[in-house]
Amino acid sequence: MANDDSLESHELQPSGGVIACAAYEGGRRVDDFTIDDVAAALAVPGRFVWVGLFEPDHELLRQVQHQFRLHDLAVEDALNAHQRPKLDLYEDTLFVVLRTCQLIGAPPDIELGETHVFVGANFVISVRHGSLRSHVGLRARCEASPHLLAKGPGYVLYALMDFIVDQYFPIVEALEDQLEELEEEIFGSRFSRETTGKIYHLKRNLLSVKRAVSPLIDVCNRLMRFESPLVPDDTRPYFRDVYDHVIRINDMVDNTRELLTTALEANLSLISVSQNEDTKRLAAWAAIIAVPTMIAGIYGMNFRHMPEIGWAWGYPASLAVMGVACAGLYAGFKRSGWL
Amino acid sequence: MANDDSLESHELQPSGGVIACAAYEGGRRVDDFTIDDVAAALAVPGRFVWVGLFEPDHELLRQVQHQFRLHDLAVEDALNAHQRPKLDLYEDTLFVVLRTCQLIGAPPDIELGETHVFVGANFVISVRHGSLRSHVGLRARCEASPHLLAKGPGYVLYALMDFIVDQYFPIVEALEDQLEELEEEIFGSRFSRETTGKIYHLKRNLLSVKRAVSPLIDVCNRLMRFESPLVPDDTRPYFRDVYDHVIRINDMVDNTRELLTTALEANLSLISVSQNEDTKRLAAWAAIIAVPTMIAGIYGMNFRHMPEIGWAWGYPASLAVMGVACAGLYAGFKRSGWL
Amino acid sequence: MANDDSLESHELQPSGGVIACAAYEGGRRVDDFTIDDVAAALAVPGRFVWVGLFEPDHELLRQVQHQFRLHDLAVEDALNAHQRPKLDLYEDTLFVVLRTCQLIGAPPDIELGETHVFVGANFVISVRHGSLRSHVGLRARCEASPHLLAKGPGYVLYALMDFIVDQYFPIVEALEDQLEELEEEIFGSRFSRETTGKIYHLKRNLLSVKRAVSPLIDVCNRLMRFESPLVPDDTRPYFRDVYDHVIRINDMVDNTRELLTTALEANLSLISVSQNEDTKRLAAWAAIIAVPTMIAGIYGMNFRHMPEIGWAWGYPASLAVMGVACAGLYAGFKRSGWL
Amino acid sequence: MANDDSLESHELQPSGGVIACAAYEGGRRVDDFTIDDVAAALAVPGRFVWVGLFEPDHELLRQVQHQFRLHDLAVEDALNAHQRPKLDLYEDTLFVVLRTCQLIGAPPDIELGETHVFVGANFVISVRHGSLRSHVGLRARCEASPHLLAKGPGYVLYALMDFIVDQYFPIVEALEDQLEELEEEIFGSRFSRETTGKIYHLKRNLLSVKRAVSPLIDVCNRLMRFESPLVPDDTRPYFRDVYDHVIRINDMVDNTRELLTTALEANLSLISVSQNEDTKRLAAWAAIIAVPTMIAGIYGMNFRHMPEIGWAWGYPASLAVMGVACAGLYAGFKRSGWL
Amino acid sequence: MANDDSLESHELQPSGGVIACAAYEGGRRVDDFTIDDVAAALAVPGRFVWVGLFEPDHELLRQVQHQFRLHDLAVEDALNAHQRPKLDLYEDTLFVVLRTCQLIGAPPDIELGETHVFVGANFVISVRHGSLRSHVGLRARCEASPHLLAKGPGYVLYALMDFIVDQYFPIVEALEDQLEELEEEIFGSRFSRETTGKIYHLKRNLLSVKRAVSPLIDVCNRLMRFESPLVPDDTRPYFRDVYDHVIRINDMVDNTRELLTTALEANLSLISVSQNEDTKRLAAWAAIIAVPTMIAGIYGMNFRHMPEIGWAWGYPASLAVMGVACAGLYAGFKRSGWL
Repeated sequence: MANDDSLESHELQPSGGVIACAAYEGGRRVDDFTIDDVAAALAVPGRFVWVGLFEPDHELLRQVQHQFRLHDLAVEDALNAHQRPKLDLYEDTLFVVLRTCQLIGAPPDIELGETHVFVGANFVISVRHGSLRSHVGLRARCEASPHLLAKGPGYVLYALMDFIVDQYFPIVEALEDQLEELEEEIFGSRFSRETTGKIYHLKRNLLSVKRAVSPLIDVCNRLMRFESPLVPDDTRPYFRDVYDHVIRINDMVDNTRELLTTALEANLSLISVSQNEDTKRLAAWAAIIAVPTMIAGIYGMNFRHMPEIGWAWGYPASLAVMGVACAGLYAGFKRSGWL
Repeated sequence: MANDDSLESHELQPSGGVIACAAYEGGRRVDDFTIDDVAAALAVPGRFVWVGLFEPDHELLRQVQHQFRLHDLAVEDALNAHQRPKLDLYEDTLFVVLRTCQLIGAPPDIELGETHVFVGANFVISVRHGSLRSHVGLRARCEASPHLLAKGPGYVLYALMDFIVDQYFPIVEALEDQLEELEEEIFGSRFSRETTGKIYHLKRNLLSVKRAVSPLIDVCNRLMRFESPLVPDDTRPYFRDVYDHVIRINDMVDNTRELLTTALEANLSLISVSQNEDTKRLAAWAAIIAVPTMIAGIYGMNFRHMPEIGWAWGYPASLAVMGVACAGLYAGFKRSGWL
Repeated sequence: MANDDSLESHELQPSGGVIACAAYEGGRRVDDFTIDDVAAALAVPGRFVWVGLFEPDHELLRQVQHQFRLHDLAVEDALNAHQRPKLDLYEDTLFVVLRTCQLIGAPPDIELGETHVFVGANFVISVRHGSLRSHVGLRARCEASPHLLAKGPGYVLYALMDFIVDQYFPIVEALEDQLEELEEEIFGSRFSRETTGKIYHLKRNLLSVKRAVSPLIDVCNRLMRFESPLVPDDTRPYFRDVYDHVIRINDMVDNTRELLTTALEANLSLISVSQNEDTKRLAAWAAIIAVPTMIAGIYGMNFRHMPEIGWAWGYPASLAVMGVACAGLYAGFKRSGWL
Repeated sequence: MANDDSLESHELQPSGGVIACAAYEGGRRVDDFTIDDVAAALAVPGRFVWVGLFEPDHELLRQVQHQFRLHDLAVEDALNAHQRPKLDLYEDTLFVVLRTCQLIGAPPDIELGETHVFVGANFVISVRHGSLRSHVGLRARCEASPHLLAKGPGYVLYALMDFIVDQYFPIVEALEDQLEELEEEIFGSRFSRETTGKIYHLKRNLLSVKRAVSPLIDVCNRLMRFESPLVPDDTRPYFRDVYDHVIRINDMVDNTRELLTTALEANLSLISVSQNEDTKRLAAWAAIIAVPTMIAGIYGMNFRHMPEIGWAWGYPASLAVMGVACAGLYAGFKRSGWL
Repeated sequence: MANDDSLESHELQPSGGVIACAAYEGGRRVDDFTIDDVAAALAVPGRFVWVGLFEPDHELLRQVQHQFRLHDLAVEDALNAHQRPKLDLYEDTLFVVLRTCQLIGAPPDIELGETHVFVGANFVISVRHGSLRSHVGLRARCEASPHLLAKGPGYVLYALMDFIVDQYFPIVEALEDQLEELEEEIFGSRFSRETTGKIYHLKRNLLSVKRAVSPLIDVCNRLMRFESPLVPDDTRPYFRDVYDHVIRINDMVDNTRELLTTALEANLSLISVSQNEDTKRLAAWAAIIAVPTMIAGIYGMNFRHMPEIGWAWGYPASLAVMGVACAGLYAGFKRSGWL
């Protein structure tokens, strides 16, 4: 029998296999069993079975396939992982691929996992790959509202999708925060060589999220319109709810992406402005140094008849002229904004 | 009983709760009551109830849900806010999410609020979040044309949408004005480091408005085509009118966005032109100073046999040569546009 | 009675009001009357009335609305102007908004006007705003082919649309000419700070035309497909003809826009190339001046034992060395394309 | 009677008029006649007439219109030319506009012509404008496979479209070659001011081809789906073949365009890299010259107590120091890649 | 009779012709024969023939066309190659064009081949052009699962498409690796003139793959929806599987393309940053050298009354001042990040 506490520890040191396997009737958990006893459980009318797998090996998956009569192609997809989110309808089974998402490390990086869901008339099987967040809490939450869970496997599918889609909100918000930090770097203080790298990195992460989320728009759309007993009419508003969330996440990603593109262009503009300012400053200082050098050069000429040379005040006067020239240039450049 | 004057003061110091709750018959307000007495009011045939809420707390919303039998998911959306504009049809209730918009501060910044509308066969409930403009004036205006208000809850939905959408025109016009100011900055006088920041900021605001408005195109489209008693046939031209406004706002935003993109590129071009001009000016002045320095260097050489050195007019002649060289260079650079 | 000559003078000093109001039967003008006598004219079967208004005031428009039983919303649009081109179908009336376009001033700038058309079973009303070109010539042309005008109000709508759409061709051609001038500026002679401004200005004008024309694609499309007695089957090829023109104008605008974008990028490229060339030229001249300065510096050193100093030919020899060095550098830079 | 040889000479010195006018039965040419005798030819059942016109004048076209009862609007289009490729269906006549394309001059430039085709139940009329390639060869080729020509006017339409669309392949390939030359210029040897101009010119030509070809996608699509006796079912695969060719040309153009955009950006990148390198080289040489100048300046100071001045080896030693400094700098810059 | 081993050697030194020609019944190979004996094999009910051709010459293809009654246009496409991936349905034959793809050379370059498939009620013909990977292994794999092969020609079509589409995964992954190398070049170490060239080259390869893969989306879509006995209902999940793969490849390519565009922009940004840094460094060193030069110039003036000149410590003091100025400037520039 699956025990929630033990599962929590599973979550810390996950090892593949069957995480939970229970039968539900009228929205209440009525039985727990091992995967080998599924046949009997499936035979009871009015019941459905919810099986949770975590990174199952080939053999286990084949056993499950055999017991629930799943389609070859769907099982192959579940084995290989690295699928794109999608919804496939086999004669009497729905197969849904979802991508999970985690922010890991500093600076945080996107790590994608995968969850596959098989939905039949009287069973749901979830296969989790790579994600650290188990579905135990979700199962508990579902069991807490039996009137909803009584809607059957279709509702469990909704609960799983909702659970996974809601994980994207904090992630997209973290990416939006990164954009804001970048904005401050670009427009506030000085940008550096790293800024460009960070922009690129953020773009990469946004595209990853986008690829994981945007195919769900189509999946939800089809679930909202499906004429199939697997998705009862009264669960449709729920899939529309997931659809709304997916659209919002997608919107946020697109928005951040467009701003990022503008930020990259603004960055390029500001680099040019910066270079412009530095060039002007360089020019100004070059002029300030060049003028006294020229004057000194003139009084360094060896003409025999240079009246100033003999004057007692010649030297300090020349220094004064140099000083005045430099000060004048400095003031002028300061006024015109070159310095 | 709700009193308009007291509501105006509500507007200044808004506190959440029921703002107004009245029953209408044949387009005329026939009764005012508290939210607890709704059941009786709903029972009268030929009447509809219009309830206005402002940032209701959880408890109040639950009470309203119970009395009007609203769907769980819709109420949850109304509680959480931060929804995307959308239209959801539950069995016998329409749920519409709208975003309101305000320009606040200097330089003005976009602040988004939210209004949710529940439309049933004999009721309309509006839930306002975050916006400072109450619906009191709107209610008064509606009551002033009873022949229109007699069309029922569908017309109130139109009136609310029209009211909110029309708030976007001055905002988009303000953003267009900002673009014009930026154009003047870019093409007229000198642009600066701030110009790029302002372009980015304007882009951000435009995207905010776009996100708030563009989903309404789809909402209006569906309202124009709906086969539902909630939206009577003769209110369709009204929703088409809102649709036209939404399309126009969307158009204005897209137009401003495209011009802004071009402005950013033009800005980059002009920064480069500017840098080019500064580089040329720097080069010209460097040459003008370098030539007399070179001549002075030559007459500063210590060769024993330099005839010019001994000439009486050597020094002034050399100075004259320097002057002429500088003047010639200056004139040449001036002519070729480097100075 | 409307008199064409007097109308022409109207055109020069337009004042709002009824420009013409006539009844047609079998494609021939059978009666002229004032707006107050419309009711009688509308009552004659087999006739239709064509009313031309120019910037009517509120009162006149309300009178017209009352006599032709027009929808409130359409009349409001006609009053406010600043609409987007569109086609609205009210129970038994079509309402079409068109934008007119003029090039005014030097450099020529786009000025948009507006024409609204109401089409009923037995009337056409055109409301002209802001355009200087009256519909008098158009009316005369229509009357010249009675077999076409006999098709009724639908044909008048076509004639008006054709008239207005054809005004765009010379305008778009003028914008294409502006692009060609810009190309010459960019690729032929030297571009300047103004070039970028002109590119931006042209882009703005193109977007204005685009916004005025592109909604007409949809309007024409719907007119070509309409199942309404207002648009008889045999006028459809005519609306398809307008559609073709609109598509062509739209195409020309898109094409010019895409080329303009490329021109802006090419401009940026060429500014960079230009800067590159100027930097090289600056470097070359700096080197040419620096070398003799360095040589002069060496012979300006005060070492007591410098054999060259004492030589009779030292000075001219040093000058010769300087000259040769400069000439060599000049030739070298010339050869490598830096000068 | 039309004679092929004489037509070939027609091709060299084309003058407007009727090029050929023949009747076909069972795919074989059974009669040649002048345009005035068409009525009789059209009356024979089981026959169709194929008329070839080259830049006809107004009068001739009106005569043709009258004899084949063509629609006013179609004939007007055929007179004006400068149409966009399109397909119009009038009651019992198809009107197709095609654009022909030629590469003329060096560097080769796109020149567009136009061919209009009228297809009726028992006639085909082709009107050629501006293209140098006559349809004589095409007619001969069609007559060589009578089993295909027996399909009737629809097949002739296919043959004309195929003939014209296939002319685009060598043109698009020439443009692809131009792109490759540009790539070599950009990435291989040095780019110049002209490179940017060529990129722009190629873009312009690509857009011209695109505008001439892309509307054909829609034309072919409609011909493939038409429910009209003018396009018999068994000619549909042929129009699908033309469709495939059009799609391929369109694809090639889009591909070249996208690469061209990238090439323009790469060009800008490389100009910047180039400028960077030149700036570094300039800086390096400036340093190499500045150091000996500074040293010379030091020994040019007039201090009375400068021990080095009196040394016998002072002068050569100072020269040696200068030489070593220069050599060291040169080696250093060489190593770090600045020179 | 075709022998697999001999075919392998064929693969090394391919020469055009019939590679294999076998009949299948119930998913098992029941007969091998030459192309001349096909007629007899086709006559047996319940059997289908699978013919493999490699770069057939004109004559062979005509023979095959005659025996399987293929459509002229399809055979012409198969002869010419250089088709775009597509699916054509002739009365009772499907014609599918697929593009194969190989990475060849170092740095690896995309080389495209082509495979054409004719599918009839009782035959499959594959025509391979340019690809080095023969279908022998594929045929063996198919024969290893007779229960699938028993589905008939439609399954063979799937197997061929799956085989070809799966070849794209390693290629797209190789291109993704190239992007990662470029990222390291751009953001990690120094980019060079070659980086831009590599970016362009990668873009070109991505576009090639895109053009070969993206038309397959439509092909698969139509195969999934086809109402034709050639594609039995139970093979549809298989075509959906191919569809998923195609969508994933397409996605990966689009993703890499978008990142590449950003990388090109980031590259341009970093080149500018780099230039900025170099300009600053140049300016700093110029200042460090200019200051002692100026001081030396001052003490090189020939004024008779310059007290410092006579001082015993004048010379070392002046050198010290120069040294301190240089050190101060150096420290200052170091602190502000210019050096």
